[in-house]
Amino acid sequence: MKVTVVGAGAVGASCAEYIAIKNFASEVVVLDIKEGYAEGKAMDLMQTASLNGFDTKITGTTGDYSKTAGSDIAVITSGIPRKPGMTREELIGINAGIVKSVSSSLIEHSPNAIIIVVSNPMDTMTYLVHKTTNLPKNRIIGMGGALDSARFKYRLAEALGAPISDVDGMVIGGHSDKGMVPLTRLATRNSVPVSEFISEERIEQVAADTKVGGATLTKLLGTSAWYAPGAAVSGLVQAIACDQKKIFPCSTLLEGEYGLNDLCIGAPVVLGKNGIEKIVEIELNDAEKAKLAESAEGVKKTNGLLEL
Amino acid sequence: MKVTVVGAGAVGASCAEYIAIKNFASEVVVLDIKEGYAEGKAMDLMQTASLNGFDTKITGTTGDYSKTAGSDIAVITSGIPRKPGMTREELIGINAGIVKSVSSSLIEHSPNAIIIVVSNPMDTMTYLVHKTTNLPKNRIIGMGGALDSARFKYRLAEALGAPISDVDGMVIGGHSDKGMVPLTRLATRNSVPVSEFISEERIEQVAADTKVGGATLTKLLGTSAWYAPGAAVSGLVQAIACDQKKIFPCSTLLEGEYGLNDLCIGAPVVLGKNGIEKIVEIELNDAEKAKLAESAEGVKKTNGLLEL
Amino acid sequence: MKVTVVGAGAVGASCAEYIAIKNFASEVVVLDIKEGYAEGKAMDLMQTASLNGFDTKITGTTGDYSKTAGSDIAVITSGIPRKPGMTREELIGINAGIVKSVSSSLIEHSPNAIIIVVSNPMDTMTYLVHKTTNLPKNRIIGMGGALDSARFKYRLAEALGAPISDVDGMVIGGHSDKGMVPLTRLATRNSVPVSEFISEERIEQVAADTKVGGATLTKLLGTSAWYAPGAAVSGLVQAIACDQKKIFPCSTLLEGEYGLNDLCIGAPVVLGKNGIEKIVEIELNDAEKAKLAESAEGVKKTNGLLEL
Amino acid sequence: MKVTVVGAGAVGASCAEYIAIKNFASEVVVLDIKEGYAEGKAMDLMQTASLNGFDTKITGTTGDYSKTAGSDIAVITSGIPRKPGMTREELIGINAGIVKSVSSSLIEHSPNAIIIVVSNPMDTMTYLVHKTTNLPKNRIIGMGGALDSARFKYRLAEALGAPISDVDGMVIGGHSDKGMVPLTRLATRNSVPVSEFISEERIEQVAADTKVGGATLTKLLGTSAWYAPGAAVSGLVQAIACDQKKIFPCSTLLEGEYGLNDLCIGAPVVLGKNGIEKIVEIELNDAEKAKLAESAEGVKKTNGLLEL
Repeated sequence: MKVTVVGAGAVGASCAEYIAIKNFASEVVVLDIKEGYAEGKAMDLMQTASLNGFDTKITGTTGDYSKTAGSDIAVITSGIPRKPGMTREELIGINAGIVKSVSSSLIEHSPNAIIIVVSNPMDTMTYLVHKTTNLPKNRIIGMGGALDSARFKYRLAEALGAPISDVDGMVIGGHSDKGMVPLTRLATRNSVPVSEFISEERIEQVAADTKVGGATLTKLLGTSAWYAPGAAVSGLVQAIACDQKKIFPCSTLLEGEYGLNDLCIGAPVVLGKNGIEKIVEIELNDAEKAKLAESAEGVKKTNGLLEL
Repeated sequence: MKVTVVGAGAVGASCAEYIAIKNFASEVVVLDIKEGYAEGKAMDLMQTASLNGFDTKITGTTGDYSKTAGSDIAVITSGIPRKPGMTREELIGINAGIVKSVSSSLIEHSPNAIIIVVSNPMDTMTYLVHKTTNLPKNRIIGMGGALDSARFKYRLAEALGAPISDVDGMVIGGHSDKGMVPLTRLATRNSVPVSEFISEERIEQVAADTKVGGATLTKLLGTSAWYAPGAAVSGLVQAIACDQKKIFPCSTLLEGEYGLNDLCIGAPVVLGKNGIEKIVEIELNDAEKAKLAESAEGVKKTNGLLEL
Repeated sequence: MKVTVVGAGAVGASCAEYIAIKNFASEVVVLDIKEGYAEGKAMDLMQTASLNGFDTKITGTTGDYSKTAGSDIAVITSGIPRKPGMTREELIGINAGIVKSVSSSLIEHSPNAIIIVVSNPMDTMTYLVHKTTNLPKNRIIGMGGALDSARFKYRLAEALGAPISDVDGMVIGGHSDKGMVPLTRLATRNSVPVSEFISEERIEQVAADTKVGGATLTKLLGTSAWYAPGAAVSGLVQAIACDQKKIFPCSTLLEGEYGLNDLCIGAPVVLGKNGIEKIVEIELNDAEKAKLAESAEGVKKTNGLLEL
Repeated sequence: MKVTVVGAGAVGASCAEYIAIKNFASEVVVLDIKEGYAEGKAMDLMQTASLNGFDTKITGTTGDYSKTAGSDIAVITSGIPRKPGMTREELIGINAGIVKSVSSSLIEHSPNAIIIVVSNPMDTMTYLVHKTTNLPKNRIIGMGGALDSARFKYRLAEALGAPISDVDGMVIGGHSDKGMVPLTRLATRNSVPVSEFISEERIEQVAADTKVGGATLTKLLGTSAWYAPGAAVSGLVQAIACDQKKIFPCSTLLEGEYGLNDLCIGAPVVLGKNGIEKIVEIELNDAEKAKLAESAEGVKKTNGLLEL
């Protein structure tokens, strides 16, 4: 199992790190255009192997895609990071060019790879990969919902005073402050609806905190976050690599599901060796449907900025 | 089991991360003076919990040591980082003041804590903690040798074409390019001396690469490395927290061992619930003894710059 | 963190095994009365350490409780196993004597230990420990619900065609075929009620299969099962040892909660360093309340067979 | 990654268990001829998934090899177990027939599988698979040395008072009390020769204890051991599945290596995706060579009992 991560920035390096720590892959190649940077990250990470107990081999390369040849899964984290105050939408002009070029190079050397898109604006970049490659839809996955759901669980656990492993919940919709739809109605603690433990006001606060999860961290850190994005990617990669059939909310091309068409947006999907093996349609109530429709509008608007 | 990490920079955050991933501690508190910074790192890390499968609670605080109260183990990573071209020695003036203040605040709130020193110049900062606190020597541990040994194993594995988990080796002496003493004579692959697999020249190259391990990464990354330092700390912390009695080369106060006195320098130690439970004296040959003595000279010279 | 497991049979050995694999404890002592048996199990398990990557030390003793001294947590698995056709209730006569004697010996050497009861009939044995020791109720925990819930999740996952990690659910009530109450109404897949994926008939089948979970395995294996019981115990032990505050359904002394009194029966509890830190009262519907009341009747009837 | 384990006895079930816990495989199929037995073990093991945190799917089948189709790796544990007093050699008559039939059925449904042989007498059964199938030698691996080395490390750690993870050592030669050759000369603690810590007499005792490791456990347990054998297999399986290139001492067909020919016997091998990717020839001293030659004689004698 060979995995490539394009981009050795904080997010890309975290992807490589957590994939390695889970110890199912034989090889992770990190590629960056900055001279020596991916090599440095790979070297530092490999020096944790004897202490963190993994046998995955991490290597770095400065722009040499031949080193990524034969990858089973490829992760695209490239793009300029969102800076404080910058909207995800403003990133699109620059990042579209990068993602198009990166995906093309990846597929050239790994024609069977499943592609996971992390670059922002994530839903639009996922859609771009669909439009500019010939890959079947199951092999193109946007990471956003897995991250947003992890942040939702964090906020739920905080509100409940519970450990995160006792909490469950999903966020669907677009991967943006306005676009994401935390499904508070379904959120649980050990299978019990959270409404048995906390008030509706507190639950709404959880949803609000979740939606500004990325922005909150950007404010605190002075740059966008990386640990949880990397961890989210590693979860998707392992689900595919180990054919786990787990459900993650991911950005996927909708063709009628949830009443939506011709866009990539977050919905629950089953991940297995073929990538997205199924889009799971769960029943939404009217308020949720409305939010998702509005979210889709936002994503489509951003998509409209793409020059396809 | 409560652990405090002072410093939310890249190294401190990696310490917290790997301690949490090993999932033995109930709580890790990260403290930094930069407003909101430790809180941000803690939040991002906690958002990986549902994906990386741990239940350790990580929290951050801006300078409030009362939040660290009752820690069993405290890690000091504070200090300005080594910049490209800067020697470890040049750091001493600034970092001594920081480490002295931090260790004093830590002990005030956690009088029974075992202290792990990461701040550079590491051996001298460890010595400083000995001189300026009343803690017994077993409760003050410098992290350097564990990191240097991890880097040694990485280079050995690279030279052997072997996975790192098949390789063993130790680095003793001072935690500096000139000071460290990789024990190449003892290095093994699955218990077999590495000299059966690679030439003496190659082994010497491994030692040379190990000694400039930190500098190599600083050059590639544009800043000093953090993953392996964090992982090294997490290994020490778990050995103590879980009373594992594992041997790590660590900076410890020598009082006659290895013919050395009144300095902290890297030697193999047994780590358990009492911190350093034993200093292990292994037989060195004359060349190794000479190198260690020279290394001790260097450390003492740096110690001389301390205003005690 | 020292843990004692009394009984080196299949269940006791699995407890020791999974506690060790989770790698948070320094020491696990296994005690059995059969000469050399605990020593043999401990030795075989320790020989997995280099391959399974743990540092917990497992030792065995033939009946020497002084070896268990100072344990933080003690697990009682002693008792004769349920044989095919034998009801849990039939076990009571023999097992009460064993459990009483074992708990007394444990407390003598580890006066501060938290006791986890696995011996069958589990709820009654837990009650017996309450009645015959002076321990506060938070320090006496019956394991049943954690196991029954694991089996419930297994059956849910099977019905859903989902991986078990995507499924959540709880079983409360007595730990017996007739007594257990799988809370099917609350069961979820990634936070979504399972009723969105499978029919009510299928859900009822899941509940029915769960209730005969132990008997099904006894029939297939020719003896009662051990892996999942051991894993359930290891989960409780880690939640306590690492102060995780996780919720598990466990047998606990009810004093008015759920309208029940003076019996130990499965209810959701928060586990932390003090053992049972809270009994969580969730809202039950009338049918569930009726089932729980009936279950309590059964447990009380069995309790009535105890000579207290 | 699909793995089949033939035999649902204690060893086979432990193989499945530890492969699943390492969480790299998508599927483990356990096959046994005893009605419902493999299904029962698989079910009990799967009920640990929510507690032990793995997503590998374990299933059982009563003799239906079509369920094993497409396995990447297959483990043969079938055969009658060694009973107290029974020599490994006495097992051969019965077990040869079983192993021949099982390997034939496995290959029929999984023509590309790598075969790991656990059945005793292990070296002879491995040789039998070579002689009776057309598989290339790299795809036939006998497990013995990995287990014997794990037991050697256990005994070394015991003698040193060290944790097992700090100890390294290998056992080569035949997998029998008389045949195994613990390489005491090379054994290390954190890369330091163990002779620096314990006397030659103690080291010899370690070797002696190692050689009777299986018999010691059989005496204590009343049956042969299973945890460490299962763990050893899981290490080999992961090394192959994840292409780790790790060295394990395994029984392999020698064709001139170590001066030996036309037998399978324990030697260090590199394991990767192709199975045995290299036989590593380390330098032995005269005493070790003599022991290995004698061990080979013993194995050949047993091989002579095969009706090929």
